[in-house]
Amino acid sequence: MNDKLYLFLAVSIVVAAIAFGFAVWLYKWIKRQPSDNKRVAEVGGYIRNGANAFLRKEYIVLAKFCGVAAILIFVFLPKPLWSGESIISNLVMALAYLAGAVFSAIAGKIGIQVATVANVKTAESAQKGGIKPSFLSAFRGGAVMGMAVVGSVLLGVSLVYIIAMFVNQTSALLGFSFGASSLALFAKAGGGIFTKTADISADLVGKVELGIPEDDPRNPAVIADNVGDNVGDVAGMGADLFDSNVASMAAAIIMAVALGKSMNSDFTAVIFCFSALGLLSSILGVMFARMGKKGDPTHALNLSTYVTTGVFTVLTALATLIFKFDWRIWGATAIGLFVGVIIGITSDYFTNDNKKPVRNVAKASNSGPAFTILSGFSYGLISVLPAMVGIAISALASYNVCKSLDPGNPIAGMFGISMAAVGMLSIVGMIISNDAYGPIADNARGLVEMGDLGDEALEITDSLDSAGNTVKAVTKGFAISAAGLTIISLLGAFISEVNEAAGEIVLSGFDIVNPTVFFGMLVGAAVPAVFSAMLMLGVDKNAQRMVAEIHRQFRDIIGLKEGKKGVVPEYDKCIEIATDGALKELIPAGLISIIITLAVGFIGGVRAVGGYLAGNIISGLLLALLMSNAGGLWDNAKKYVESGAEGGKGSIAHKSAVVGDTVGDPFKDTAGPSINTQITVVSLVASLMASLFLHYSIF
Amino acid sequence: MNDKLYLFLAVSIVVAAIAFGFAVWLYKWIKRQPSDNKRVAEVGGYIRNGANAFLRKEYIVLAKFCGVAAILIFVFLPKPLWSGESIISNLVMALAYLAGAVFSAIAGKIGIQVATVANVKTAESAQKGGIKPSFLSAFRGGAVMGMAVVGSVLLGVSLVYIIAMFVNQTSALLGFSFGASSLALFAKAGGGIFTKTADISADLVGKVELGIPEDDPRNPAVIADNVGDNVGDVAGMGADLFDSNVASMAAAIIMAVALGKSMNSDFTAVIFCFSALGLLSSILGVMFARMGKKGDPTHALNLSTYVTTGVFTVLTALATLIFKFDWRIWGATAIGLFVGVIIGITSDYFTNDNKKPVRNVAKASNSGPAFTILSGFSYGLISVLPAMVGIAISALASYNVCKSLDPGNPIAGMFGISMAAVGMLSIVGMIISNDAYGPIADNARGLVEMGDLGDEALEITDSLDSAGNTVKAVTKGFAISAAGLTIISLLGAFISEVNEAAGEIVLSGFDIVNPTVFFGMLVGAAVPAVFSAMLMLGVDKNAQRMVAEIHRQFRDIIGLKEGKKGVVPEYDKCIEIATDGALKELIPAGLISIIITLAVGFIGGVRAVGGYLAGNIISGLLLALLMSNAGGLWDNAKKYVESGAEGGKGSIAHKSAVVGDTVGDPFKDTAGPSINTQITVVSLVASLMASLFLHYSIF
Repeated sequence: MNDKLYLFLAVSIVVAAIAFGFAVWLYKWIKRQPSDNKRVAEVGGYIRNGANAFLRKEYIVLAKFCGVAAILIFVFLPKPLWSGESIISNLVMALAYLAGAVFSAIAGKIGIQVATVANVKTAESAQKGGIKPSFLSAFRGGAVMGMAVVGSVLLGVSLVYIIAMFVNQTSALLGFSFGASSLALFAKAGGGIFTKTADISADLVGKVELGIPEDDPRNPAVIADNVGDNVGDVAGMGADLFDSNVASMAAAIIMAVALGKSMNSDFTAVIFCFSALGLLSSILGVMFARMGKKGDPTHALNLSTYVTTGVFTVLTALATLIFKFDWRIWGATAIGLFVGVIIGITSDYFTNDNKKPVRNVAKASNSGPAFTILSGFSYGLISVLPAMVGIAISALASYNVCKSLDPGNPIAGMFGISMAAVGMLSIVGMIISNDAYGPIADNARGLVEMGDLGDEALEITDSLDSAGNTVKAVTKGFAISAAGLTIISLLGAFISEVNEAAGEIVLSGFDIVNPTVFFGMLVGAAVPAVFSAMLMLGVDKNAQRMVAEIHRQFRDIIGLKEGKKGVVPEYDKCIEIATDGALKELIPAGLISIIITLAVGFIGGVRAVGGYLAGNIISGLLLALLMSNAGGLWDNAKKYVESGAEGGKGSIAHKSAVVGDTVGDPFKDTAGPSINTQITVVSLVASLMASLFLHYSIF
Repeated sequence: MNDKLYLFLAVSIVVAAIAFGFAVWLYKWIKRQPSDNKRVAEVGGYIRNGANAFLRKEYIVLAKFCGVAAILIFVFLPKPLWSGESIISNLVMALAYLAGAVFSAIAGKIGIQVATVANVKTAESAQKGGIKPSFLSAFRGGAVMGMAVVGSVLLGVSLVYIIAMFVNQTSALLGFSFGASSLALFAKAGGGIFTKTADISADLVGKVELGIPEDDPRNPAVIADNVGDNVGDVAGMGADLFDSNVASMAAAIIMAVALGKSMNSDFTAVIFCFSALGLLSSILGVMFARMGKKGDPTHALNLSTYVTTGVFTVLTALATLIFKFDWRIWGATAIGLFVGVIIGITSDYFTNDNKKPVRNVAKASNSGPAFTILSGFSYGLISVLPAMVGIAISALASYNVCKSLDPGNPIAGMFGISMAAVGMLSIVGMIISNDAYGPIADNARGLVEMGDLGDEALEITDSLDSAGNTVKAVTKGFAISAAGLTIISLLGAFISEVNEAAGEIVLSGFDIVNPTVFFGMLVGAAVPAVFSAMLMLGVDKNAQRMVAEIHRQFRDIIGLKEGKKGVVPEYDKCIEIATDGALKELIPAGLISIIITLAVGFIGGVRAVGGYLAGNIISGLLLALLMSNAGGLWDNAKKYVESGAEGGKGSIAHKSAVVGDTVGDPFKDTAGPSINTQITVVSLVASLMASLFLHYSIF
C-alpha cells in the first residue's frame, strides 16, 4: 500500500484545475484588450466562423469514425466478448477510448475559440498599444491552448487511472490514448491538408498569377488561409501534442505497473508527481513571459522556455528528495528534458536565417528552383543526424540509468526511456503556448493588412510573426524527438501487453536476425513513406480543386478583380472545398496504415509486429525530421531573400525560393508532423491488438 | 572431402574465360562496323580522351587511398600484428583487398574502352544501316561490360577462394569484397557527381539560358556531359554491380563455411556452381538479343532478360538434380530471382510514361514546378512499399526454406537469404548489358547531333535512347533489391565473424529492445541520409563552378556564341572541373560513413554495430528506392511532356517538368544508386573489424 499515489493523483487533479482557472483568467485578460475596428471585427468573424465550420464537420466525421471504432473495441478488446471474460473490461475500454477523443476535442475547441479572439486583439493592440501588449495578446492566446491541452491530459489520465484501478485494468489507458490518437489523426493530418490547400491555392492565384499581395481581401481563398492557420497549427498541433503527452504517460504507467507488480507503487506515483510539476512549471513559465526593454519577441519566447525547464528540474529534484523517489528515475527524466532542449537548438541551426544552411540555399536559388530544392533537401537530410543521435543517446542513457531498478528485467530500462519521454514532454504546456502563438500572430498580420491598420502595426505584427516562425522550428524538433522517445517506450508497452495476454513471458525482445522480425521491419519502414505521400498528394489534388474555384470566382463575380467597393468573394466556398477535401483525402491514408498493421499482425504474429513498429519508428523519425526541417529551411530562405538578400523580391533567387517554400509547406505542415501521429496510432493499435495477434496469427 | 567444389571452381574459371572470350568476340564485331565520318570520329575522340582522363585521375587517387587502406589492413586485420597470430593472414587480407580493387578497376577500364568505341559505331550504323545494326552496336557494347564485370567477379572470387583454402582463412573474401567496394565508392559516387555536374551545367547554360539544343557543339560542357554518361553510367554502374555481386558471393560463402563446418562442402560448391551457370545464362541471353520484325528495342532488351532468367532457372534445377544439391538451396535461389523480376516490374510502373504516376506528375506540372516536385516525390515515396514488401517476402521465404538445413542454427536461414541474393544477382551479366546499353545509345544520339548525321539517324538514336531509359528503371529496381538482400546477408556474415573471433557463440542475434542495439539503429539510419546529402551538395557546388567556367568561355572566346566556323570551346577545362570536383566532394562523404561506423563500433561494441547495420539497411533501401524511382519518374515526365502532352515543349508544364528532371538527375544518378555502395562498404567494414569491436569497445 502506498499513499503517495493517491496524493499525487489528487495533486494532478488540483493542478489541472489550476491550469483551467489560469486559462480562464488569461482568456478574460485577452477579452479585456481594446478592439473597435469594424472591418477587423468583420474579417475576424469570417475566420472564426470558418474555423468553427471546419471543426463541426471534422467532429461529425470523427464521431462516426469513433462510434464504429468504439463498437469494435467493445466487441474485441481487450479480449473478444465470446472469450468469456468480464464484459466490464470491454465496456471500460470502449468508454476510455471515447473519453480520449472527447477530452482532446474539447481542448481543441477551446484553443480555436481563444485563438480566433486573440488574433483580433493582437492586431488591434499592435495599432493601439505597440509591440508589448500585442505580443502578450498573441502569447496568452497561445497559452490558453497550452493550459487547456495539458490540463485535459492530466485530468483525463488521472481519472481514467482511478477507474482503471477500480476494475484492475491498466490497459484502459491504452484505450484512452488510442482515442486521443484517433482525434489527432483527424485534427493534425486533416487540419494539415486544409491549411496547406488554402495556403498554396491563395498564393498560387493571388501572388503568382495576379500579383496581388498576401492577405489581400479580394482573394477568395484568403479567409480559408487564415482559418487554416487555426485549424492546422492551433487545433491540429494541440491534438498532436495531446496525443504524444497521453501516450508517453500511458506507456510509462503500463511499464510502471509491470515493474511495481501493482497498480499502486512509487513507480506510478512518480509519474503523476512529475507530470503535475511539469504543468505547474509551465504555468510559471507562461506568467514569466514578458518582453524585456529591447522588445524582442524571440527572446521572450525562448526565455520562458528556459524558465520552465529550470523550474521543472528543481521542483522534481525537490519532490524526489522529499518523497524519497528513486533518483535514477529523476535522472532519466532530466536526461530527456536536457536532450530535448539540445535537439531543439540543433534544428534551429538548420532553419535559422542567420546560419549557413539557409544562406547557402538562398545563394543556390540564383541558379533556379531545382537548386533550391536540391540544396534544401540535402540540408534536410543532414539535419536528421544530430536529432537521431540525440534521441539515440537519450534512449541509451535513460535505459542504462534505470535498468538497475529491477536487474535482469528489460522493462526496467524501457521504463527509464519512457520517463525520459515524460521528461521531454513535461514542459509541453510551454511548448504549445509558444507554438500556438505563431498562427495567432500570423492571423493578426492578415487582419492588420485587411483592416488597413497602418504600416506601423504591420511592422509590429510582421516581427511577431517572424519570431513565431523561428521558435516553431525549435518546438517542432522538440515535439518530434519527444514523440520518438514515446514510441520507443510504446514498444516496451507492446511487449508488456503480449506477455500479459499470454500469462507468461513469451517475448523478451525482437531479434533483428529473426526473419519474421526483419520482414516486419522492412514493411513497417515503408508505411510512413506511403502515409506522408498520400497526404501530400491529397494537398495537391485539393489545391487543384480550390484553384479552379478561385478562377471561377474571379471570372464570375463582376468587379472582384478590380476591387470594386462592396464586392466580396464567396469565402465560404473555398472553406468548404478545403474542409471536404481534407477529410476525404485523409481517411484512406489513415486506414491504409491501420490495415497494413493488422495484416502484418495477423500474418506474421507478434514478432513481425515488433519489427514492424521498429521499422516504422526508424523511417518515421527520419522522414518527419527531414520534412519538418527542410520545410522550415525553405520557408526561412524565402523570407531571407525577401528581406533583400540575393537580389531581394522579384529576383531569380526569389522566384526559386518561392518554389522551395511551396514544396516545403506540405512537407513541414502536413506530412512531416502527421507522421508522429501515424506512428502513435499504429503503435497503439499493435498494443491493443496484442492478445489477438498472439492467438490468431497465421505464422 | 568433396570433389564437387573443385569441379565447380574449375567450371567457374572456365566459364569466366568463356565470358572474356565472348567479350573479345563482341568487341571485334563492334570494331568491324563501318564508320568514316571525320567529325564523329573527332568528337568521339574527345569523349574517349575525356573519359580516360577521368579514369586516370580517379585511379591515381584511388591508388593512394587503397595503398593507405591496404597498409592499415595489413597492420590490423584480421587481427592486429602484435596479437602474435600469423603474419601471413594479414598479408593475404591486404593482398585480397588490393586484388578486389584492381579486378574491378580493370573491368571498368575495359567497359569504358568499348563503350567509347561502340558509341561512334552506334551513331554511324544508325545512318548507314538503320535501327537493327545500330541497336546491336549499342547492346553489344554494353554486353562487353557485362561480360567483363561478371567474368572478373567469378574469376576473382574463385582465385581468392583457392588461396583462402590454402591458408584456411575465409575472411580473405571479405578483404576482396572490401577492395571492390572501395573502388565502387569512387567509381559510382565519384562518377555520379561527375556526370550530373556536367549534365546539369550543360543544360542550365545551354538549354535554359541560351536556348541552344542539347548536344550543341558550341557548349563547352557538352563533351563533359557525354564523358559523364560513360564514367557514371558505364564504369560507375559496372563497379557498383561488381561490388554487389562479389559481396553476395562473399556473404554466402562465409555462411556456407560456417554451416558446412568446412571450407569444402556442398554448401560452398553450390555457390560456385550457380554463379557459373548465371554467367553462362547471361551469355546465352546476350546472344539471343535481337530485334524482332517490329524493331522495338525495349522488347528486345526485356526479352533477353526473360531468356536469361528462364535458362538460369532450368540449368540450376538440372545441376541440382545431377549433382544432388539440396533442393532447398535451389528454392531460395529461385525465390530471389523471381522476386527480383517482380520488383523490376513494379518500379517500371512508377517510371513508365504509359502509367498513371508519370501522367499525373505531367498534369500537376501545369500548376508550376512546386507541384512537379511534390507529386513526383510523393509517388517516389509510395514506390518504396512494393519493393520493400518484395524484399521482405523474399527474405522471409528464403530463410524459411533453408532454416531446416541445420535446425536451430540461425545461420542456416541467413544462408538461404544470401542464396536468394545470389539468385537475384545471377543474371547480373544481363542486367549490366542492358544498363550499359543506355549511355552508349545516349552518347550515340549526341554524336549524331554533333556530327550532323541527319534526321533519320537522330530519330533512330532517339528511340534507342528512350528504350534505354525505360529498361534502366527496371534494372535499377533490380539492382537495389539485390543489394538489399546482399546486405541483409552481410548482417549474417557479421554475426559469423564475431562468433569466429570470439571462438564461441557470443552473439546469436540483435534484440531491438536492447538499448545498445536501438542506439545503433537510430544512428545507422541517419548515415545514408547524410551520405546522399553530401553527394548532392557536391553536385550542387561543382555545378556552380562549372557554370562559371561556361560563362567565362562564352564571354572570352570570341565567336563561340555565334557558332563561327573553326571556333571550338575548351572542352577539357570543363572535364577537368568535373573530375577534380567529383573526387574532392566524394571523399568526405565516404570518410564520414566509415568514421561513424568505427565510432559506433568502438563506443557501443558489436551489438551497437548490429543495430547500426540494420538501421543503415532500412533507411538506405528507403532512400535509394525513393530517389531512384522519383528521379526516373521526373525524367520520363519531362520526356512525356516533350512528346507533346500537356502543351508540349515550351509550355508551363514543360518548364516545370525540366525543374523536376534537374532535381531528379542527382537523385537517380548520383545519390540513389551510391547508397547501395555506402551500405556495402559500411557492412564490410563492420565484418572486417568484428574482432576489434569485440575486444576494444568502451561499452
